[in-house]
Amino acid sequence: MPKITALNHVAVVVEDMEKSLLFWRDALGIELHELRDVPAEQSQVAFLPVAGAEVELVMPTTNDSGIAKYLAKRGQGMHHLCLEVDDIEGMLSQLKAKQIRLINEEPRASVDGKKYAFIHPESTGGVLVELYQII
Amino acid sequence: MPKITALNHVAVVVEDMEKSLLFWRDALGIELHELRDVPAEQSQVAFLPVAGAEVELVMPTTNDSGIAKYLAKRGQGMHHLCLEVDDIEGMLSQLKAKQIRLINEEPRASVDGKKYAFIHPESTGGVLVELYQII
Repeated sequence: MPKITALNHVAVVVEDMEKSLLFWRDALGIELHELRDVPAEQSQVAFLPVAGAEVELVMPTTNDSGIAKYLAKRGQGMHHLCLEVDDIEGMLSQLKAKQIRLINEEPRASVDGKKYAFIHPESTGGVLVELYQII
Repeated sequence: MPKITALNHVAVVVEDMEKSLLFWRDALGIELHELRDVPAEQSQVAFLPVAGAEVELVMPTTNDSGIAKYLAKRGQGMHHLCLEVDDIEGMLSQLKAKQIRLINEEPRASVDGKKYAFIHPESTGGVLVELYQII
């Protein structure tokens, strides 16, 4: 049976990265592990590790990406929740068998080779859930 | 220096607890640790542990609580992010010194004696953040 093994990260869409870092890094004191430009996703991402999980701040760098449109429509806030799974293909099959609505029916591969897939908020209670298999 | 030590939970506001559990418990296979009625908060809460952190599903049980109004206005989805801190008084002082807007200027005590305080989304990039000191 495929299994959820960890809460990997919570992604937060922000309008202003420097202003947001004034809170997460400077006021809360969470270490900024990396601030990375991700041209493929038209965004800048800050990685802030918290005891095995991570808060990820995502700021759109163009106006026409999916994340920019989300920000324009919904405003700043938590965007998705990422859970680690030990067998992403098995989990997606299990979800399909239970009529869960998937955004990605098959896993996609990130630039560093990790597999991920998104589940539609309609089936989760309003949460965009990302599944992520590291190994 | 007060320190953030863990990501304790992500709280999700849901309209229909049984329907939401069909996803989180039955489809994803996360163990339902407890399903608790919390009359003081006019809600029912499901606790679903994930490797040291937790997903908490919160369903309002009346129409006039804060959480019911949030649901009516914003719809289902992630409601707040709870971080553990080793010294909540020290952290609140540190946040105040950095002009972070707090909802609770002093820690409140939960029924089981744990201390918590909320930080206003205005200062965090749109996230309602709860601080939580267990010991």
